[in-house]
Amino acid sequence: MKLLSFVRPDGTATAGRLDDDHRIVDLGRPLRTLLADPVPEGRPHGADVFDLEEVTLLPVVPDPSKIIAAPVNYRDHQAEMNEAYHIDALGIFLKAPSSVLAHQGTIRLPYTDRRFDQEGELALVVGRPGRDIAVDDALGHVAGYTCLLDITMRGGEDRSTRKSFDTFTPVGPCLVTPDETGPPEALTLRTWVGDELRQDADLKDLIWSVPRLIAYASSVMTLRTGDIITTGTPAGVGTLADGDRVTVDIGGVGRLETTVSSQGAVPCPTGGAHRGPVPPRTVTPVRVPPDLRLVRGVTGKEGKEGKAHST
Amino acid sequence: MKLLSFVRPDGTATAGRLDDDHRIVDLGRPLRTLLADPVPEGRPHGADVFDLEEVTLLPVVPDPSKIIAAPVNYRDHQAEMNEAYHIDALGIFLKAPSSVLAHQGTIRLPYTDRRFDQEGELALVVGRPGRDIAVDDALGHVAGYTCLLDITMRGGEDRSTRKSFDTFTPVGPCLVTPDETGPPEALTLRTWVGDELRQDADLKDLIWSVPRLIAYASSVMTLRTGDIITTGTPAGVGTLADGDRVTVDIGGVGRLETTVSSQGAVPCPTGGAHRGPVPPRTVTPVRVPPDLRLVRGVTGKEGKEGKAHST
Repeated sequence: MKLLSFVRPDGTATAGRLDDDHRIVDLGRPLRTLLADPVPEGRPHGADVFDLEEVTLLPVVPDPSKIIAAPVNYRDHQAEMNEAYHIDALGIFLKAPSSVLAHQGTIRLPYTDRRFDQEGELALVVGRPGRDIAVDDALGHVAGYTCLLDITMRGGEDRSTRKSFDTFTPVGPCLVTPDETGPPEALTLRTWVGDELRQDADLKDLIWSVPRLIAYASSVMTLRTGDIITTGTPAGVGTLADGDRVTVDIGGVGRLETTVSSQGAVPCPTGGAHRGPVPPRTVTPVRVPPDLRLVRGVTGKEGKEGKAHST
Repeated sequence: MKLLSFVRPDGTATAGRLDDDHRIVDLGRPLRTLLADPVPEGRPHGADVFDLEEVTLLPVVPDPSKIIAAPVNYRDHQAEMNEAYHIDALGIFLKAPSSVLAHQGTIRLPYTDRRFDQEGELALVVGRPGRDIAVDDALGHVAGYTCLLDITMRGGEDRSTRKSFDTFTPVGPCLVTPDETGPPEALTLRTWVGDELRQDADLKDLIWSVPRLIAYASSVMTLRTGDIITTGTPAGVGTLADGDRVTVDIGGVGRLETTVSSQGAVPCPTGGAHRGPVPPRTVTPVRVPPDLRLVRGVTGKEGKEGKAHST
């Protein structure tokens, strides 16, 4: 099942189910409320149905109570960032709920004089709330998976600042339930900037697996329905500039498309530019086999899906 | 006007106004909703009234969309922590909304083998939402002020982890509107652990004033009604142990009382114990003039209020 948040043609914000015929069944409640109960199958009595083109997509969870993120959760990203420590020593961090952005939204770079990078990630949305969840029970708390971009300012400011500017958490387009995605460790993630494939990773390479991350996060803070937990980014982060198109594709989960704008950017008022982890100077693009060339599409279904995994 | 969130004797969560006779007028809506409109004066038609003793207090905002905090915002605290940088270079950080705790609640220390400190702070609650708020307009977005404890695990984990454990943000007891508190820079803050006065500071000593902090935070992230912004802690942080009573008193704003428990604590699963800023080894208690001895009381009105400011 694919769930999404959207604005109806009459201006009402709601959530619904995207069916295989590309029609949306309005389930009449915001996503957080919808996920608190079993999601109805079929077409509930009186439910409105819309074409995808008729509605405006919202961030898949427009108002999460928390966005929990993993600071360094792939060894190849730890190496490229010259980070001494990974998630085992760093724990988790928070991004502002106000930073969410919808599929096909515009990432707005706030400053003229700072570096901003893309970080493509697999995220999950919490269904059943919980506290002190056991690793073995963790996947039972997952409502579904989605694509996420953890847009990041480099430097020495606190992570919450560097990653929480408005529009810095594109998330979507859909929430796909685990029965459709299969186990998270079997997924692959690819991030393009323009036509350059920058990130190409297997989710099995996470340092802390999805269940371990959920269990740890729930030992620190009570997880609520609709909370987003994002699993960290692999190697291949790189700079963003005005006009860039940034795309994350996770097979079986979807394809999230965004563009970048630096309109209205101003000089940065804080002085962290020359501190913090040292990012790679240049991106080394992944060699792209022909069947992984990016073809744009709303749900990831229209594009040609690559099967091979380049190394 | 003093506003608070509470559970009625019938189990309903709501918000109300605490009047001078210590009676609570139920205003029939949660605090975040209440603050979206002008708060009614007098006793609205049909409003229920309760004695303070009849209700259970909630955190003053039970469900903020964000808790924004200032990492190092007093020079004396920067010195005692051996911090190379302050808020000018660090920006702001986020605490989890799930970490809020009510007045007279119990702070639960999660680990047996880590150091936890008290950090007493003045916090404000956002009334009118906003983005890119000018310094000169910032105080117009403040619904009121309250006391806050930013309970902190020392070490190298991300600030959001170290400060977001459930119960690590006691906040209250009331939200006091600015017409009653006067300007924030005229306030004084005192924190006791047991009968030891650990922190005694003038809010005029903030590195970033309340208006500047609001303006900066709103340039990073859209501020929403009910968001909590806490202004940072002065010198005098120190360790907490099972059974401690921790009290923050801000003249004109109120007195927030908590207790500490280490029941159920386990060994810490993350490895940040020997990294991070170096806190003071021992607390140097502030010399306490007789008129600043702590007298306990729910609203800060029953206790003897000191007028002198020890140095």
